[in-house]
Amino acid sequence: MEASTAEAAPAKTVLRVAAISGSLRRASANTGLIRAAAEICKESIPGMQVDHVDISELPLLNTDLEVDGGFPPAVEAFRANIRAADCFLFASPEYNYSISGPLKNALDWGSRPPNCWGDRAAAILSASGGSGGSRSQYHIRQVGVFLDIHFINKPEIFTRAHMPPKKFDDDGNLIDPETKEHLRKMLLSLQALALRLQGKPASSEQGNGESMLPFMS
Amino acid sequence: MEASTAEAAPAKTVLRVAAISGSLRRASANTGLIRAAAEICKESIPGMQVDHVDISELPLLNTDLEVDGGFPPAVEAFRANIRAADCFLFASPEYNYSISGPLKNALDWGSRPPNCWGDRAAAILSASGGSGGSRSQYHIRQVGVFLDIHFINKPEIFTRAHMPPKKFDDDGNLIDPETKEHLRKMLLSLQALALRLQGKPASSEQGNGESMLPFMS
Amino acid sequence: MEASTAEAAPAKTVLRVAAISGSLRRASANTGLIRAAAEICKESIPGMQVDHVDISELPLLNTDLEVDGGFPPAVEAFRANIRAADCFLFASPEYNYSISGPLKNALDWGSRPPNCWGDRAAAILSASGGSGGSRSQYHIRQVGVFLDIHFINKPEIFTRAHMPPKKFDDDGNLIDPETKEHLRKMLLSLQALALRLQGKPASSEQGNGESMLPFMS
Amino acid sequence: MEASTAEAAPAKTVLRVAAISGSLRRASANTGLIRAAAEICKESIPGMQVDHVDISELPLLNTDLEVDGGFPPAVEAFRANIRAADCFLFASPEYNYSISGPLKNALDWGSRPPNCWGDRAAAILSASGGSGGSRSQYHIRQVGVFLDIHFINKPEIFTRAHMPPKKFDDDGNLIDPETKEHLRKMLLSLQALALRLQGKPASSEQGNGESMLPFMS
Repeated sequence: MEASTAEAAPAKTVLRVAAISGSLRRASANTGLIRAAAEICKESIPGMQVDHVDISELPLLNTDLEVDGGFPPAVEAFRANIRAADCFLFASPEYNYSISGPLKNALDWGSRPPNCWGDRAAAILSASGGSGGSRSQYHIRQVGVFLDIHFINKPEIFTRAHMPPKKFDDDGNLIDPETKEHLRKMLLSLQALALRLQGKPASSEQGNGESMLPFMS
Repeated sequence: MEASTAEAAPAKTVLRVAAISGSLRRASANTGLIRAAAEICKESIPGMQVDHVDISELPLLNTDLEVDGGFPPAVEAFRANIRAADCFLFASPEYNYSISGPLKNALDWGSRPPNCWGDRAAAILSASGGSGGSRSQYHIRQVGVFLDIHFINKPEIFTRAHMPPKKFDDDGNLIDPETKEHLRKMLLSLQALALRLQGKPASSEQGNGESMLPFMS
Repeated sequence: MEASTAEAAPAKTVLRVAAISGSLRRASANTGLIRAAAEICKESIPGMQVDHVDISELPLLNTDLEVDGGFPPAVEAFRANIRAADCFLFASPEYNYSISGPLKNALDWGSRPPNCWGDRAAAILSASGGSGGSRSQYHIRQVGVFLDIHFINKPEIFTRAHMPPKKFDDDGNLIDPETKEHLRKMLLSLQALALRLQGKPASSEQGNGESMLPFMS
Repeated sequence: MEASTAEAAPAKTVLRVAAISGSLRRASANTGLIRAAAEICKESIPGMQVDHVDISELPLLNTDLEVDGGFPPAVEAFRANIRAADCFLFASPEYNYSISGPLKNALDWGSRPPNCWGDRAAAILSASGGSGGSRSQYHIRQVGVFLDIHFINKPEIFTRAHMPPKKFDDDGNLIDPETKEHLRKMLLSLQALALRLQGKPASSEQGNGESMLPFMS
């Protein structure tokens, strides 16, 4: 995934972000936010790459499915993706004032010993109705305490998918420039925290987020 | 307790409790708590009946699976069970400081319009490690605000499954008399709230829970 | 306070709502919501009366101030007001994503044994920035589990005080008709739950809130 | 960071921890935990110093008390202490399933613009009844998102003050060796996160907390 052949290349030059959407429907705005994040990184954030990790094939968590310390194939593949990542991006729809069932199920499979999430930076963003998904985000943060995830505090992004202006096209692609700009700031903030936690200097553009207000669009 | 003397007995004399376990494994202590609740009702709580509603066959929530207002067969069956119930009992293991993925998934399917959970009384109990599952219970309560569920406040039951004394046998059956007694009090409190909300008088044994402390076993 | 003189009057014909504002500043929009609620009851909700209970004179909670089972005078007066109420209305600003310090302090003083809040219905509304105060409301609901308060589920009201249209004048008086109408629905829902819990029939206008969406203005 | 031999010692060699107790009573076990933390640092954690910051003299938050951008004297003094600290230690009793009123009040005063808490590491520990205070800790963590505080994830400490063995003497002094040992691990974890966030190497003893289970005593 990173650097490779060069003789004196830094061991790891690209931060790999495993991105998970809590919505499984084809035209999901949350999955659209992940596509937009991947695009933004490719275009304008060197040293950071977003990979969408699909969770739709995971079985409902049942520890009886773990045999001799092994997991079902879909779970093994998912866990390998999580372990290989440097940090995480959760696109979290709010279902009934909390985390979506599919996303919670994925968080749970990744937590089975040995925990795959530990000691990594993460960010959360939401496209949802009503309050833009904020209620789900604080539940994820509580989950992250046990999983030992370090979340950025700012900026927070709450995208009210059904309020004007139109933010997503019919396929769930993000078309709103203002949300894109906030998403870019979020990715820079995630990169900055990930590098701080790894003991590496952040690039000059990466603010510490101090002055960023929550963004509700 | 109505029933009694009249020849034309009231159509509905028994409160039906739909009970859901958030753990799918065969020997789950949470499912064991539901079996114990069913037993207790049969033995000593007239007018109340606990039915275990299985959630293991539900697909991960994906609204693309809803076609022409219809749901997949397993979802339809589940929703019919929820709609038919008078109140709910959630046996909620704590997974990573929140609701288990399978239970959240079931709550979400039941919420798809038209909401199947609305305006019913409910109680939550947990068998879990650590704090006995309390963190998951408050997340369920927040979900219940949107679903319009009325939870009893007292007693709360947090069963620390792995602490002495041994509370469950190897098949997950509840064998601890003290926990059984608290479970009985919880069922009476649920019955009392359900009847109050239906405008019916509660039986004399049903306290209002005022003096009941949270029970951590 | 009510009824009294009549010879065969029902013992208690008016539901007394103790209303508490979590903001102490003179021109608080939250206190303004309480004034509006009192007005609405007076004008159009027979059988319900809203009284503002001031919390600004309470000392910071310190149980060393309790001597021989007695409380400081300001605390005794506050507790008497809470005990005398039939239900509660909390106007809760969101301070740092949670309950305001003054409101939490008041909740705590009222909880000192014997608990003054128990087994009563309540509603919460908020005027705040950002998300309209929703985060504070779910923390209050968690507090209410221990205090044994029964909250209405619907409608929820989240008033974004600084967003157009202008909702409050410079003295914090509510001037927005749409918010007033939702406040009226909230009061009817509170009345309906309080009466259900007391085993009394609700008036015809009081819906069960089933179809009410959260109101973010 | 510690000591070392060099002649041109680093300008700042000691991490200053501002420690706040949410309980104001004289014999508070939570204040006792802070005294124990100060002692432990003095005895065995070079480069770290715990200072108790008193919050009992703060008025209830009321922004009308802010005049020309200035705060009442007790608030100014408190805010200066918070600003001067490198990280924070919260000793948080659980009052009614949430943060104590006095602690929330202090968090709120410190947050008034310009925010005094931002971009610092923190840890939370609790002495309380029931679940050992865990419910209050997650509310503080949610507050910390807005305040931009970075909390350690592990170890968590929940001290059940009234359960055997006796952990505190009658003056609230911590006398339980096992809790002391966990408190020491928490302080090392806090030091490690604070140094990571400052881009400095941690000392060898400081684990990343990965393997630390929540400690309920």
